[in-house]
Amino acid sequence: MTRASVIGVGMTPFGVHEATLPELFAEATLPALDDGGVDTDEIDALYFGNAMGGQTENDTHLAPTIASHIGCAGVPAQRFEDACATSSNAFKHAVEAVEAGLHDTVLVGGVERCTPETGLGTGAMTRVFASASHRQYEQPSGLTFPGVFGLLTKRHMYEHDTTDEQLAGVAVKNHANGTLNPRAHFGRDVTTDDVLDSPIVADPFHVLDCCPFSDGAAAAVVTSADNAGSFDGESVDVTGVGHATDIVPLADKVHPSTTRAARDAATEAYDQAGTDGNEMDFAEVHDCFTGAEVMASEALGLVETGDGGPAAADGRTSLEGSIPINPSGGLKAKGHPIGATGVAQIVELTEHLRGEAGDRQIEGARKGVAHNLGGDAATTVVTVMEAAT
Amino acid sequence: MTRASVIGVGMTPFGVHEATLPELFAEATLPALDDGGVDTDEIDALYFGNAMGGQTENDTHLAPTIASHIGCAGVPAQRFEDACATSSNAFKHAVEAVEAGLHDTVLVGGVERCTPETGLGTGAMTRVFASASHRQYEQPSGLTFPGVFGLLTKRHMYEHDTTDEQLAGVAVKNHANGTLNPRAHFGRDVTTDDVLDSPIVADPFHVLDCCPFSDGAAAAVVTSADNAGSFDGESVDVTGVGHATDIVPLADKVHPSTTRAARDAATEAYDQAGTDGNEMDFAEVHDCFTGAEVMASEALGLVETGDGGPAAADGRTSLEGSIPINPSGGLKAKGHPIGATGVAQIVELTEHLRGEAGDRQIEGARKGVAHNLGGDAATTVVTVMEAAT
Repeated sequence: MTRASVIGVGMTPFGVHEATLPELFAEATLPALDDGGVDTDEIDALYFGNAMGGQTENDTHLAPTIASHIGCAGVPAQRFEDACATSSNAFKHAVEAVEAGLHDTVLVGGVERCTPETGLGTGAMTRVFASASHRQYEQPSGLTFPGVFGLLTKRHMYEHDTTDEQLAGVAVKNHANGTLNPRAHFGRDVTTDDVLDSPIVADPFHVLDCCPFSDGAAAAVVTSADNAGSFDGESVDVTGVGHATDIVPLADKVHPSTTRAARDAATEAYDQAGTDGNEMDFAEVHDCFTGAEVMASEALGLVETGDGGPAAADGRTSLEGSIPINPSGGLKAKGHPIGATGVAQIVELTEHLRGEAGDRQIEGARKGVAHNLGGDAATTVVTVMEAAT
Repeated sequence: MTRASVIGVGMTPFGVHEATLPELFAEATLPALDDGGVDTDEIDALYFGNAMGGQTENDTHLAPTIASHIGCAGVPAQRFEDACATSSNAFKHAVEAVEAGLHDTVLVGGVERCTPETGLGTGAMTRVFASASHRQYEQPSGLTFPGVFGLLTKRHMYEHDTTDEQLAGVAVKNHANGTLNPRAHFGRDVTTDDVLDSPIVADPFHVLDCCPFSDGAAAAVVTSADNAGSFDGESVDVTGVGHATDIVPLADKVHPSTTRAARDAATEAYDQAGTDGNEMDFAEVHDCFTGAEVMASEALGLVETGDGGPAAADGRTSLEGSIPINPSGGLKAKGHPIGATGVAQIVELTEHLRGEAGDRQIEGARKGVAHNLGGDAATTVVTVMEAAT
């Protein structure tokens, strides 16, 4: 069943930006409004995501400032923060608000700056990111996110014989996809040897297993399915949105590498949509590290549990494979401006389901799924979208 | 019409706390669950507010951590940040979720630490607070929040002949109410002379016109009106929740002292509830500075525009007056742990509407309104609650 429709999308290139957060958000939003054929006075509410602006730029309470900046002053505007799942959570609430009849048409999006343009170098930014781990147990022990996902992935390797080469396969694939995406932070190919020869960050991850810190913004206009026909933008249906969390800290999880929240969120989203992972034509998943994509592909039911590594290595998840994953290049190559990442996945799904994804188009795509996680694989939002019939 | 019901409430004393954010939140939540007769496995979602934890304690993505800490691991948990209106916005979304049938029973609350227990002194904390003003235009000019509300109040004084003595009347009243509230940060009386003789912070505000930085937490359990009878907690009905924003920065507002967002939010909340300001028996308003209470009392229609100052000075808004405002002591005396303040107002409304407010009880209270604002009088949430019939 259609819960809501996306009628307009926009995003900035991901990479390095000088613009302020409101300016950068506008660079995604105004194209989204244009794409949808939506005037600012038709926007009834702003569901806004930003994860770290307080720490990076001493900038909070951004929702009304941004509403003012883009010409929607006065609308109910709210900021969400759920670490790297920030804007997919904003999207979930936008879909729910439209479905419940609270608002007719909602602007949803996210923005973040994570590069040295903020004035923070990699070390300081790593500490800022680590604020999303457990404050009492994990931060004092130096467990930053390469370590969090390294631990999860090492457990997956132990349980399923996943190899370094298979993990590298994820990076090779996503970099290849990124060369076809003009908005990607990294537009260059890498080889398995490049990945395996790059310096270790946190075992088993080499530098090239890790996504970058990026600046960027993404936006979408959501309206009711009944309302969608009144706008010029080609609509795409949102048929399921699942949201679950898992235990924090990491050490308390029972079966860490199964990423329980992802499985719970996927079950919820698929149930709403009356579908399952087997019916997906493609997926955008949260590959902050290569191991995270492996676990996500299993949690979403796109491959069998334990088969995520082989599937990446043997090309099943490539653009030409049986289940393409991260045609955008994913966080790995497209980039990862934290608060923008979730809605950027929605933008990618929308473009494929419209047949507008250019050189990386998944031919004949009718159903796609997005998976966005935050923190210690804790917050997870899974969204199913389908081409309008 | 009843939109949802509050069946359990709890809050910590406001003041200085050593506990971590999750621990402090638990100190409010466990009493709220106990008050409602609610088991943790009956909680379907957590709507959580914290404004500044990233900046004050390098602690973000708190919602799943807190869900884990209080025994609700796995539920959909989301963090809201809308400056000082943070947890009233979380409350709005909780009410909407219950009303839409998305969740049966929701835990909503907020927590914040703002005292030197965070390691930040008053100067550093003032800068953190200022992150909620306009980053490009206001922060570089040194416009912190005493200045923001000083400017709004000076305009009000110019337009309506509001006096320093009338502003002081707000502080005297709220301190008096605070002496009756065992959870208040300040439990002592002050006189008009005390206020006027205290040092100037930002004209027209003396120190005693300003609320303190506090630590604290507040929580409420929200369920559908149909469901409320199945819990032991005495239910109170939520009949209206309005949410609006206003232009940021301050300099772009057309009629600053009318606090347009508050008027828009109040209109929305009263319309939903089929009532108006004249029918309210009492109010909790966002008196971060004395002038803010004056403007709020007018925006909510509790007194005529321009009459807020005289109403405070002549006792009409005292506990024994025709329209008691801030029986809790308000932010001024009860304290202001930013992300907890909105839900703390809901706790106060609930206790009066149940007849459980002790020495400060508004006798026979049947209808109350809460007004919580964030930033440059930008985000405003207004909630109408009524005793269950």
